Amino acid sequence: MAYLAGFLDGDGSIYVRLKPNSTYKYGFQVAPYVVFFQSSKSKENFEKACSLMNFGYTRERKDGIMEFIIGKNEDIKKFLKIVKPYSIMKKQQILLMIEILDFKEKIKSKEEFEVLIKLINRFQELNYSKKRKLRALTP
Amino acid sequence: MAYLAGFLDGDGSIYVRLKPNSTYKYGFQVAPYVVFFQSSKSKENFEKACSLMNFGYTRERKDGIMEFIIGKNEDIKKFLKIVKPYSIMKKQQILLMIEILDFKEKIKSKEEFEVLIKLINRFQELNYSKKRKLRALTP
Repeated sequence: MAYLAGFLDGDGSIYVRLKPNSTYKYGFQVAPYVVFFQSSKSKENFEKACSLMNFGYTRERKDGIMEFIIGKNEDIKKFLKIVKPYSIMKKQQILLMIEILDFKEKIKSKEEFEVLIKLINRFQELNYSKKRKLRALTP
Repeated sequence: MAYLAGFLDGDGSIYVRLKPNSTYKYGFQVAPYVVFFQSSKSKENFEKACSLMNFGYTRERKDGIMEFIIGKNEDIKKFLKIVKPYSIMKKQQILLMIEILDFKEKIKSKEEFEVLIKLINRFQELNYSKKRKLRALTP
């Protein structure tokens, strides 16, 4: 568990995207991810490290980068709860992402979805993303 | 210790350079390093993680990358012995680097230095370095 926390801190990314999508009730798909990156030349060892987790999948990009992706909400929560006590660099992101995923499950109104969007915007600020788009239901 | 092994596997580099230097007995300086890299925007948390180690130093490059560098032979050995039982991705590098550092201390002849160079060349092959120059005392 401590190893995975160190691996996440050194190499991993936690992020969440709000994708405009009219088939969703409130107009957005909430897409959280935990991703690890390594050069394909370390493929074998990378897959060995990632196999410590019983979820997620590996893909190899055309530019020679391997990605290990945890994309299911339940898996992300499981993983974050494992590394939470040990992470040093991503503690805040871990806590806020768990809050976001827990909150997301309970949403019953547009007002609550707006609160979720605020949490997501706050998360994106933690990540210092320069490409970040601040979203709002009612601009 | 497991956290540091994960951090090393995810983010760290272990390498050794043979620098031609006529002031050294056998014409080369052996310069091993353990280095971690993070974007300067994570400076505070990066320094927190690095402070788990009681050696090494941080420097901030002009391109916005922070480096944490362990450069002293003794410190590198201490660090590698700490992470050895837990590392998954860099196990081979760790074992060979410890062998190199132990062997280096005992060198008493040019022949032994040539053996060291072979170990170093083998290490550099493990790292898949494309910039690698194979060195030999007697070309």
